[in-house]
Amino acid sequence: MKSMTIRNGQEYIESLRRRKIKVYLFGELVENPVDHPIIRPSVNAVAETYDLASREPDLATAYSPLIGKRVNRFLHITTSADDLVKQNEMQRKLGQLTGTCFQRCVGMDALNALYSVTYEIDEKYGTQYHKRLVDFIKYVQEENYVIGGAMTDPKGDRSKSPSEQDDPDVFVHIVKQNDEGIVIRGAKMHQTGCINSHWIVVMPTMRLKPEEKEYAVSCAIPVDDPGLTFVYGRQSCDTRSMDGNIDVGNAMYAGQEAMIIIDDVFVPWKYVFMCGETEFVPVLVERFTTYHRRSYVCKSGVGDVLIGAAASIADYNGVLDASHVREKLVEMVFLNEIVYGTGIASSYKARATKAGNYINDEILANVCKHHLTKFTFEMARLAQDLTGGIVATLPSEKDLKHPEIGPKLMKYLATKNGVDPEHRVRMARLIENMTMGRNAVGYLSESLHGAGSPQAQRILIARYMNLEEKMKFAKRLAGISDALNGKEEEEEEESATLTSSAPAPSTHSD
Amino acid sequence: MKSMTIRNGQEYIESLRRRKIKVYLFGELVENPVDHPIIRPSVNAVAETYDLASREPDLATAYSPLIGKRVNRFLHITTSADDLVKQNEMQRKLGQLTGTCFQRCVGMDALNALYSVTYEIDEKYGTQYHKRLVDFIKYVQEENYVIGGAMTDPKGDRSKSPSEQDDPDVFVHIVKQNDEGIVIRGAKMHQTGCINSHWIVVMPTMRLKPEEKEYAVSCAIPVDDPGLTFVYGRQSCDTRSMDGNIDVGNAMYAGQEAMIIIDDVFVPWKYVFMCGETEFVPVLVERFTTYHRRSYVCKSGVGDVLIGAAASIADYNGVLDASHVREKLVEMVFLNEIVYGTGIASSYKARATKAGNYINDEILANVCKHHLTKFTFEMARLAQDLTGGIVATLPSEKDLKHPEIGPKLMKYLATKNGVDPEHRVRMARLIENMTMGRNAVGYLSESLHGAGSPQAQRILIARYMNLEEKMKFAKRLAGISDALNGKEEEEEEESATLTSSAPAPSTHSD
Amino acid sequence: MKSMTIRNGQEYIESLRRRKIKVYLFGELVENPVDHPIIRPSVNAVAETYDLASREPDLATAYSPLIGKRVNRFLHITTSADDLVKQNEMQRKLGQLTGTCFQRCVGMDALNALYSVTYEIDEKYGTQYHKRLVDFIKYVQEENYVIGGAMTDPKGDRSKSPSEQDDPDVFVHIVKQNDEGIVIRGAKMHQTGCINSHWIVVMPTMRLKPEEKEYAVSCAIPVDDPGLTFVYGRQSCDTRSMDGNIDVGNAMYAGQEAMIIIDDVFVPWKYVFMCGETEFVPVLVERFTTYHRRSYVCKSGVGDVLIGAAASIADYNGVLDASHVREKLVEMVFLNEIVYGTGIASSYKARATKAGNYINDEILANVCKHHLTKFTFEMARLAQDLTGGIVATLPSEKDLKHPEIGPKLMKYLATKNGVDPEHRVRMARLIENMTMGRNAVGYLSESLHGAGSPQAQRILIARYMNLEEKMKFAKRLAGISDALNGKEEEEEEESATLTSSAPAPSTHSD
Amino acid sequence: MKSMTIRNGQEYIESLRRRKIKVYLFGELVENPVDHPIIRPSVNAVAETYDLASREPDLATAYSPLIGKRVNRFLHITTSADDLVKQNEMQRKLGQLTGTCFQRCVGMDALNALYSVTYEIDEKYGTQYHKRLVDFIKYVQEENYVIGGAMTDPKGDRSKSPSEQDDPDVFVHIVKQNDEGIVIRGAKMHQTGCINSHWIVVMPTMRLKPEEKEYAVSCAIPVDDPGLTFVYGRQSCDTRSMDGNIDVGNAMYAGQEAMIIIDDVFVPWKYVFMCGETEFVPVLVERFTTYHRRSYVCKSGVGDVLIGAAASIADYNGVLDASHVREKLVEMVFLNEIVYGTGIASSYKARATKAGNYINDEILANVCKHHLTKFTFEMARLAQDLTGGIVATLPSEKDLKHPEIGPKLMKYLATKNGVDPEHRVRMARLIENMTMGRNAVGYLSESLHGAGSPQAQRILIARYMNLEEKMKFAKRLAGISDALNGKEEEEEEESATLTSSAPAPSTHSD
Repeated sequence: MKSMTIRNGQEYIESLRRRKIKVYLFGELVENPVDHPIIRPSVNAVAETYDLASREPDLATAYSPLIGKRVNRFLHITTSADDLVKQNEMQRKLGQLTGTCFQRCVGMDALNALYSVTYEIDEKYGTQYHKRLVDFIKYVQEENYVIGGAMTDPKGDRSKSPSEQDDPDVFVHIVKQNDEGIVIRGAKMHQTGCINSHWIVVMPTMRLKPEEKEYAVSCAIPVDDPGLTFVYGRQSCDTRSMDGNIDVGNAMYAGQEAMIIIDDVFVPWKYVFMCGETEFVPVLVERFTTYHRRSYVCKSGVGDVLIGAAASIADYNGVLDASHVREKLVEMVFLNEIVYGTGIASSYKARATKAGNYINDEILANVCKHHLTKFTFEMARLAQDLTGGIVATLPSEKDLKHPEIGPKLMKYLATKNGVDPEHRVRMARLIENMTMGRNAVGYLSESLHGAGSPQAQRILIARYMNLEEKMKFAKRLAGISDALNGKEEEEEEESATLTSSAPAPSTHSD
Repeated sequence: MKSMTIRNGQEYIESLRRRKIKVYLFGELVENPVDHPIIRPSVNAVAETYDLASREPDLATAYSPLIGKRVNRFLHITTSADDLVKQNEMQRKLGQLTGTCFQRCVGMDALNALYSVTYEIDEKYGTQYHKRLVDFIKYVQEENYVIGGAMTDPKGDRSKSPSEQDDPDVFVHIVKQNDEGIVIRGAKMHQTGCINSHWIVVMPTMRLKPEEKEYAVSCAIPVDDPGLTFVYGRQSCDTRSMDGNIDVGNAMYAGQEAMIIIDDVFVPWKYVFMCGETEFVPVLVERFTTYHRRSYVCKSGVGDVLIGAAASIADYNGVLDASHVREKLVEMVFLNEIVYGTGIASSYKARATKAGNYINDEILANVCKHHLTKFTFEMARLAQDLTGGIVATLPSEKDLKHPEIGPKLMKYLATKNGVDPEHRVRMARLIENMTMGRNAVGYLSESLHGAGSPQAQRILIARYMNLEEKMKFAKRLAGISDALNGKEEEEEEESATLTSSAPAPSTHSD
Repeated sequence: MKSMTIRNGQEYIESLRRRKIKVYLFGELVENPVDHPIIRPSVNAVAETYDLASREPDLATAYSPLIGKRVNRFLHITTSADDLVKQNEMQRKLGQLTGTCFQRCVGMDALNALYSVTYEIDEKYGTQYHKRLVDFIKYVQEENYVIGGAMTDPKGDRSKSPSEQDDPDVFVHIVKQNDEGIVIRGAKMHQTGCINSHWIVVMPTMRLKPEEKEYAVSCAIPVDDPGLTFVYGRQSCDTRSMDGNIDVGNAMYAGQEAMIIIDDVFVPWKYVFMCGETEFVPVLVERFTTYHRRSYVCKSGVGDVLIGAAASIADYNGVLDASHVREKLVEMVFLNEIVYGTGIASSYKARATKAGNYINDEILANVCKHHLTKFTFEMARLAQDLTGGIVATLPSEKDLKHPEIGPKLMKYLATKNGVDPEHRVRMARLIENMTMGRNAVGYLSESLHGAGSPQAQRILIARYMNLEEKMKFAKRLAGISDALNGKEEEEEEESATLTSSAPAPSTHSD
Repeated sequence: MKSMTIRNGQEYIESLRRRKIKVYLFGELVENPVDHPIIRPSVNAVAETYDLASREPDLATAYSPLIGKRVNRFLHITTSADDLVKQNEMQRKLGQLTGTCFQRCVGMDALNALYSVTYEIDEKYGTQYHKRLVDFIKYVQEENYVIGGAMTDPKGDRSKSPSEQDDPDVFVHIVKQNDEGIVIRGAKMHQTGCINSHWIVVMPTMRLKPEEKEYAVSCAIPVDDPGLTFVYGRQSCDTRSMDGNIDVGNAMYAGQEAMIIIDDVFVPWKYVFMCGETEFVPVLVERFTTYHRRSYVCKSGVGDVLIGAAASIADYNGVLDASHVREKLVEMVFLNEIVYGTGIASSYKARATKAGNYINDEILANVCKHHLTKFTFEMARLAQDLTGGIVATLPSEKDLKHPEIGPKLMKYLATKNGVDPEHRVRMARLIENMTMGRNAVGYLSESLHGAGSPQAQRILIARYMNLEEKMKFAKRLAGISDALNGKEEEEEEESATLTSSAPAPSTHSD
């Protein structure tokens, strides 16, 4: 196939039209997903990742040593901590531009996670996964494709492992295998942006038993493989996108979630990146989530939009300078910057993997994502507070534009001189969109469950919190000797040194 | 007119059909609001207030000395603290039954507030407002009507008082007055349930200058007065009520918000309860909000539904006994019971007004409502956390019921044995409904802005917090004498007594 | 013994001197605990419970049908819900007057819990506990004694039950028993105010196995029984009470905690209220904690002092009207009133026990206490915030009064005209006292652990949260039939009625 | 003076003895501050900054181009972002080692702030401040001295500027000036560690009017200048340091706060770094606080100790693996890492000043510090929760060691096998120390007020939050044109590009 690199959003959209993807929505097979009014805003959000690369190449592209030229940063294998920080800056920017999920991070993080894990599998087993993956990466870099990452299995009965399930298909697994490749079956839930992708990369979802080899599978599949069926998720207020321009709140952009049903899909070996190496499954999952939890810095960009919207509506209402309004905006900024700060700190503290690409700090990545699971609802609360009651009671666009009733509504929605009441309405609708509507899904629910639900981060924080070291610090200060006379001589000596110039003061004698 | 008391929900619905009310929705005049699929769930919620009265008369009716028989409690003038507590118990119950706003509290609280305020105006001015109001109350008690309370004006430029506005109509005001009555003009925003009412009671919205007499107006108007136009608010996910039974989440019930445009409506004197007595405006507003902020105990009933939904879905997922799930449910209950506890405490501490009816405690009413403005988004967060990612990615009902794709979806949505996957879907949709959909408006936004936005409660808490007394306590304990040698001799003596048996210990001598 | 009712704080203090109590403090047997400068402030706090009874008999005394006269409310067996509410009002008042723990609630709650439990044991076993207890109550009502309640055992290895412990004494138990009485041994931890009591009432601390009968013991012991040894707890800043008047912050009042060692104490049968009835142990513990967790309304009175102190120091600094200061004070009041509201709501919702006395609502009692475990540190934070840096850097009283350096310090501690810098210092010291010093123990640590640590309340909230009912509400609204076709016919019918007037709207047809 | 570089903690302590510093404590002039049992733990904490430099030179020293050798990092002028990050790593480490404030950051941050500000003053006015400062820095680097930074003035009446005060001395100001130098008078409040310093650097505290030149002064003074008097702050539980080894909790280390009275101190020109340039005062203050607010990363090290202590005591109690205990520890770690993450993110994002040294990001520095003002009390709450009631009721060391009563106490304080009850006591005392005792001052109060009280950070966050840009993002997405047709043509064009591939979807036609 001749290389036909996609150069901008428009070309990206055209490229999507050429796919024969099978998508269901509202019980119907969608003929042309790209132009479906519900789906299109989610396509637009991905398109923005192409246009940004044109407008700000430093930010949204990177030099790839694999193919010797600059590629879209979403397809780049990180070569430094700075690459990871730049990802975060790009993510925040795209959050600001779209006010929603732009759906291209999963693929970026999946490729980077696989890059190091395939290397380590090959190192142990002499397999060819890494080379295959590198070939695949080169190919998609050349084509400038969108890669969806597919991880979450349906999981069936949560108390049972994959092999114990009544229905083996509730985890994606290999049903056949021969010289040419493998055949897989199952489904993947909660797939962000896959319908807007060119390829999806399948990954396993959780720790397996050694004998559950058929579930340890990672591979790439083109989205229009005939064995794939996508069912578009029905989300809050999605049909408003079919209905005018004001009520939807954000007419341009939206996120997208779908379920993928995988019906005996054949995958040639060249696209298989893991096949049975169960002990590497948790490694892959953790590496992916380490990248991906920090990728949620994007939500600080979305938060910027929400803060800006809250400030705008306060301004339209003439209360932007009221002290309690100011305090609420400051609080929103404070909460929002914690996401950004902890996220980029995780990226700055990156280290090289054996394969040579860079991975960010684990505990800070989890702290970043976990903070998101806690504060976006508070952001929504503050934004709605600043909006006033109209966030919940506004008439529809059709009423506002009705020849008789419209002017009366505008008369009563007017605030101060110089403010167009329609602007007030539009801004309130944007806030509704982000706190209860289409993009609330991305801002609230995805911040909760994307890249792992809150408890998943707590488990990782527990894994990395190093209580033993912290207990040692405390014991030393409490004067508890078992901290000092540990097993190793050296430690003891160090401790002795530690306290040399700080003798406990003797009891005061009167 | 012959008395035709409405005896149950069905008769109530019939009674609504007899009105000639003018309602706009999506740019069209709605012929038959009661049967409009978007409006009907909100009618059902009010109907439930009638049916509950039949099923549990102790809870939802009360003996009215005014007409010498039991009346629906929503129309009852409180005769004891117990009446106020019973209101709360009824409100919580209806919240549990409907999972939304049942829209009948505003009228109840408006009548009770006016009852004492009209008495006090008459006492000062020798007017007839109280008698007129009592007649009106008797009438609606006999008919068992629904009363909407209309308070919030559009307010225009927030930095200007009513008489300073460019457009005088942004506050409802009297434009004409003669022997037979008054003519009023303006609009009322954020009107909960007015379209489902028989009468609305208009009240002023905020403190006025003495000369702004034409804005100090309270009166009753039948909802089908030709001068009234209602514009139905477009809310999150409202059109799902037109579309099947599962996706909507709660197919039976919903709230309702509308804007009312008042175009030169004539009101006969017998329905006028305040006309120019500006100094009583803040009294009326505060008394109404004192009742109404405590009426938000209803949301503890709605909270019960959300907790139950979160527990159910955790149960379907087989994780109800996981410790972190348990902790989250306990946290939800803890937060939810604070609403109930502070609300009924306010009611229990009621006192009689001069007119003889009872009013609840101010500071606790404000604490109750203010807590609601803070924690419902946290409830939503916890509920979505327990639901898992499907809260944001579920396929539509039409996909689930599609002959080909439906069974596959159900296969992958199944969890443990004995759980119907459709139940899991329905419960997730109910949680979506309450946290992002139709009833999120009632649970989240109305909890914020209903009965006054958060800052309004803080102002009232500040008004009643009695810092001086608290400072006196502190000064006494800090040994600061200006607390002791105050202006009044008596106080000084009391203070002396206070400390008589608690001399400060003398300095210890070695 | 001739009755010598204690009539006021002064007589109470005298009565304490007549005891031969054995108290250790700083490694020494304290000759005269009442006059020890560290202990005295805690005695003063109890004395205040006597003086308040004189000054405000309605509030702090009650008519006891047992002896046919008014008694101190702390010794009263509740005869109505109003009695429980009055306890709360009295507790808040005493918190305001002392700014600390006044130590008399444990006895009050222990007597009331035992009152109903002994009745129920007797009912089952034909024993005499209730009569004995009533005789004891009459006696202490006549004498107007202070009763300490002793519940918490040392507990040793937390993973083992009492009978499994290496050392059987880590739970109080009966070591001998004969016709005249029993002999008990063990210790009680964290005893609030016992050294200031006349009698202590011993109670078991947790659920026992049926065979652990010797641990199921409740009885009364005079505090100066020779087998009792009290070891005074060393608390933050306690020695400041020995050292001038300013630095201590609150020179008059403090709390008190002690460990009681029980070395083979003989208790005559007339003072034994439970002896081996293991199944009543959890009943007694829960009933006691139900009363006692709501008794923490006292802390809303202490909170009033802290709010007053924070407001005073803001006033001295000239910033009382700054908006952010105001907001912080409002927040403190808001948090503080939740304690009060949920506490009195629990009391108002009281019901009669079989024995006839009244007990408050369980879930609200636990919500009240649990809220306290969460917010007092936030109160401390806000108070220190409003105090400014001097909360941590103030010179000592001796420096302030030093002839040379003192005037310079006062020069630099002065703020605005009319404010005595010493007042500013005193107020800052009071805030230090309540947030880091002597009374922080009562306000912060006791709010956490008194009447059970936070997790204990969560367990009780879980026990009473009635998830099944809540799940039923949710299922009905989600249209899930297993909520409707339950086991009982009646339920089904009721559900049918419930939905009769609220049919799900049919799908909208275009 | 011959150079006598201090090489370790011991030599540092010796160097302090050679000073003739005037310190008051408890109304007495302290002869030998270094060996005073209350002061010594604070000296030990500073000594640790020397010993760490020996043990871990990479972390705690840096190459100074000024003198061409490695110097203690606390005296280093930053030459890169990495230098700022290393400061943070060193601060966290020292927090872990000392569990308190080690008092050397103020000087580090003051020198770095002055480095760039003096450069900019000279640039504008042709003055010599920068050169003088560099000479001073070289000198203290050679000597390895401790520098205290003195900023906070008493401020008198907060509603008045310095020149309006009744007493001009409530802000430090120049009272005389001649060819040789200046004479200053006033006082500095809340001085951390100044008594343990060799020199203090005076800086102004807040924005001045142009004519208030005499208040715009910065200079260096040796701590034993006869015009300086230090009054040691009396802090919670300070006297426990005089009294055994267990009760104090942390016998080795503590912080220190003092007031400095400046009585007409003469400062030669060579030590004057600002003198009348009022417009640079806010620049200096903001630059200092930018550095210093991020220096609070130290508290994440102190937090590590508190977490370790809480985990240890849970371990001693045998409940370390209980799920609610685990959750609380994870919560503590989560909160604690936010400090670290936002702090180092601020450092990583550093940029060069005109003078060439590096300064960290403003908004993240303020977010880091502001988070600290919010969560340390929550950390204290969680730590006390995990400790259990003994945090407030433990007997004194003297009781524990009493021949008769001691063994009984130990018997009852024992938990599980293998745990020395004294360890449990020691750990509980450490937690008391950090949450109510000596080091609570550093961990709680200093986290609130050090480097500016909470409101100060909110003001800075507001200054840097760039609402206009955020409002522009929101307006673009809401489809509000005034965001697009701004004043500048270029902006319009860019906006046009922005939306080129994302046309709003047209209304869906059925």
